[in-house]
Amino acid sequence: MNLPATSLWPTNTWYVAATADEVSGKPLGRQICGQQIVLFRNDAGEVAALDDFCPHRGAALSLGFVRGDTLVCGYHGLAVGCTGKVACMPGQRVGGFPQVRSFPVIERHGFIWLWPGDASQASPELLPRLEWADSPEWRYAGGLFHVQCDYRLLVDNLMDLTHETYVHRTSIGQKEIDETPCKTEMVGDEVVTTRLMGNVPAPPLWQSLMRQHGLPDDQLVDRWQICHFSLPSHVILEVGMALAGHGGYNADSSVKVSSIVVDFITPETETSNWYFWGFARSFCLDDDELTTSIRDRQATIFGEDVEVLEQQQRNVVRYPDRKLLKLNIDAGGVRSRMLIDRAIAEENKPPVNA
Amino acid sequence: MNLPATSLWPTNTWYVAATADEVSGKPLGRQICGQQIVLFRNDAGEVAALDDFCPHRGAALSLGFVRGDTLVCGYHGLAVGCTGKVACMPGQRVGGFPQVRSFPVIERHGFIWLWPGDASQASPELLPRLEWADSPEWRYAGGLFHVQCDYRLLVDNLMDLTHETYVHRTSIGQKEIDETPCKTEMVGDEVVTTRLMGNVPAPPLWQSLMRQHGLPDDQLVDRWQICHFSLPSHVILEVGMALAGHGGYNADSSVKVSSIVVDFITPETETSNWYFWGFARSFCLDDDELTTSIRDRQATIFGEDVEVLEQQQRNVVRYPDRKLLKLNIDAGGVRSRMLIDRAIAEENKPPVNA
Amino acid sequence: MNLPATSLWPTNTWYVAATADEVSGKPLGRQICGQQIVLFRNDAGEVAALDDFCPHRGAALSLGFVRGDTLVCGYHGLAVGCTGKVACMPGQRVGGFPQVRSFPVIERHGFIWLWPGDASQASPELLPRLEWADSPEWRYAGGLFHVQCDYRLLVDNLMDLTHETYVHRTSIGQKEIDETPCKTEMVGDEVVTTRLMGNVPAPPLWQSLMRQHGLPDDQLVDRWQICHFSLPSHVILEVGMALAGHGGYNADSSVKVSSIVVDFITPETETSNWYFWGFARSFCLDDDELTTSIRDRQATIFGEDVEVLEQQQRNVVRYPDRKLLKLNIDAGGVRSRMLIDRAIAEENKPPVNA
Repeated sequence: MNLPATSLWPTNTWYVAATADEVSGKPLGRQICGQQIVLFRNDAGEVAALDDFCPHRGAALSLGFVRGDTLVCGYHGLAVGCTGKVACMPGQRVGGFPQVRSFPVIERHGFIWLWPGDASQASPELLPRLEWADSPEWRYAGGLFHVQCDYRLLVDNLMDLTHETYVHRTSIGQKEIDETPCKTEMVGDEVVTTRLMGNVPAPPLWQSLMRQHGLPDDQLVDRWQICHFSLPSHVILEVGMALAGHGGYNADSSVKVSSIVVDFITPETETSNWYFWGFARSFCLDDDELTTSIRDRQATIFGEDVEVLEQQQRNVVRYPDRKLLKLNIDAGGVRSRMLIDRAIAEENKPPVNA
Repeated sequence: MNLPATSLWPTNTWYVAATADEVSGKPLGRQICGQQIVLFRNDAGEVAALDDFCPHRGAALSLGFVRGDTLVCGYHGLAVGCTGKVACMPGQRVGGFPQVRSFPVIERHGFIWLWPGDASQASPELLPRLEWADSPEWRYAGGLFHVQCDYRLLVDNLMDLTHETYVHRTSIGQKEIDETPCKTEMVGDEVVTTRLMGNVPAPPLWQSLMRQHGLPDDQLVDRWQICHFSLPSHVILEVGMALAGHGGYNADSSVKVSSIVVDFITPETETSNWYFWGFARSFCLDDDELTTSIRDRQATIFGEDVEVLEQQQRNVVRYPDRKLLKLNIDAGGVRSRMLIDRAIAEENKPPVNA
Repeated sequence: MNLPATSLWPTNTWYVAATADEVSGKPLGRQICGQQIVLFRNDAGEVAALDDFCPHRGAALSLGFVRGDTLVCGYHGLAVGCTGKVACMPGQRVGGFPQVRSFPVIERHGFIWLWPGDASQASPELLPRLEWADSPEWRYAGGLFHVQCDYRLLVDNLMDLTHETYVHRTSIGQKEIDETPCKTEMVGDEVVTTRLMGNVPAPPLWQSLMRQHGLPDDQLVDRWQICHFSLPSHVILEVGMALAGHGGYNADSSVKVSSIVVDFITPETETSNWYFWGFARSFCLDDDELTTSIRDRQATIFGEDVEVLEQQQRNVVRYPDRKLLKLNIDAGGVRSRMLIDRAIAEENKPPVNA
């Protein structure tokens, strides 16, 4: 675990640093990709991100407060602007003070996106497009877990949903997931793993969603799971079911419940991550009680993964030289890690010109 | 503390891994001699022990469940047999899957015994004989402590009972322990330290046991303490007292209370151990209330040792180069450690043939 | 953090090891300047300090008990005298037993002072003189915090009181501290940083003290802060205020509230310290309720520093190579550290004679 931080994750890319509502008047200190960062909003409500280290004496800027367009250190009053330039400090000429490193941030789709690497390469164009996030046809809710494992173990987890049969056997698992082969392929820049299950019963959580939508819960369904990985560590799962024989994924919305499970996984350290999870649905949009209920149940289900992942992490650290198997079901994770490794190698390439 | 694990304990030997009732339908994960192990019973009730690491992705098998003769990984359903051979996994051909390491285990005398070293050398014949364990003439109860110290500090503790005068002064200690010399000798493969105290008063706990047995508690007694160490780290204490002048250890059972204090100490890491302790008595066999009461009092008394041992451990780690004294009272521990060291050296000897 | 302990603090000097009332019949184990030490009083009430390590088997002597002039190990009864000589042990001839290291200690001014270095250089003459401690003209109360930071960060904190404006803004801070330049100079062996504020309002805590003394709390005052650092890590703050225009620091006691904030900071490890803080006042001497109330409020205020300091410590450890700024306001801390560094260098100088 002594590798330099850049070996484990790409840095010239956008990560979710926080949900929009986590960053309010009070600054938020958070370690992202091995760097201690403070996120805050200036008085105009714009988000900024700085190195969480006051250049005066090393105090944590996140213990400070916002004044106008600056973050004021809570120790001795040094004020830093949103770009990292020291603005003022009582009784001091700050012209020669060192700059505080600032990080590109963008607020979009309810999240604060942060670019931990070379700021000159950051561009809003590189942000993922999330159709469900601002659309009136989708309803979203989610949460945040702090998980003590390498973020890539969570990517593996989400790209191989056969684990639902075991880890989530009482809610969304069913033996047909295990029994139905999946297909992994590259679609553009995404790794996509698809599993289509025809004529299967609905497991408990999905029965409940069918009922909510006014559909019978005791009939066979066509169930789909389409996992999309994109760099650096976003996993979007299209999951749902339709009454059997109506076209499955492409069935009319009146006979299906379809949803998007959202997973943004942000490395904190080599062995921990911030896991932003959520659920967007395209049915019963105005049912607030359902929104809350789904979020609570998703928290319970995703909490089941945490224990498995954290023990897996301890095992992997304990036996760093053991080779793991790469089965067909692991293809999604394996391919995703290849994209990650390639992105890291790309960043570390020596400059072409000599 | 960076020595290889094999330097601190023998491995080609039987350790107590768990009490029989700790291993039920639910698998039990436990680190033993530096190795993370899962113990479980198959549907026939037979105990097995495997490396707690799924060869698929490194998940902890101890989070799984038992199905028939196999332990099924709770992450993606790989099933391992009791010998460590992968039995099946949904959708996979497992013929080429690597074997999971299995460990010889035997259930006997109410304990699960595990052989952490070379399985080819394991033999039930090498298990210790515990006359009290399955005999109608003895009644046993005990418990388990997780102690943060090198297991050898606990061996030292049990082979020098002068500590009772200080650590357990309100229950089983008395100044005559300190004042009476002990004798240490080899008896077969055992280190035996004997202390016989004639015409002494009984300390509080023993007064209470005398009363239970219908004997006066205010008369002088002959008290004995015979400590038996055997490899790898078993300490059996024959302790008791008889009304003075009736023959002490050899007195008729009507005028004595005699018991066996049982101590199986299993290394977990270099600085922690699993301490299985208990008490077998040969009087008042049918008094269940007494059984419970003795176990509770033993837990209290042995808990007094834990604080001393854990602080001693921190001191020993802090000053690894300080020589400790080896007094006559320490002879039991010193001899026991010599047996341990010799067993370790024996295991690490290069093969004879070149 | 792997430097030898002597690099971070002088050892041939007196530190506060405990308050007098912390060391009673029961021995007290405490790590001071990286050394695990036991403090105790013999039956005559005299304080002694020994290495907290029994030469027999390394048990913590602080778990033992006092008997006469000795500390008896609570494991096997070895008794050590106050000078570290082993006095006796049941059944043993102790003439050849190794000496336990003892440390010079003196009880004075309500504190136990300990000299962690070369005992031959220890002299009571080198103890600081604390006029307020035993004088009928002062009333003192204080407390102890265990702080997870390099003791020098706490010295910096106390020698630059501009932090009051931010860290203690609701009690003793005011913007005029920031706005008024301070002066740092050597006065004898002390670093003295002085700030005099004329015609300023009194902040809330001081308003309350003015009222207690029968003075109006809504008038302008002359406020002073005089910070005295002396080796090894004592910071004495003369702080107070007088009704404006009456002479400030030198005003008649009827129109001022003057006090001494006491800070003895004893290194525990490279990253933690024992912080003995207190407050001596020269007004309302007999008001016990006020004494308690001031101590409680001081505990709250100094607790605000702890969070800042512990996060600063983590930042400093995280980025050991970052240079911090040394501004005019930091002069007190910078000078104090120079004295510390010089004292350490002096101790480590090779002997002159070859």
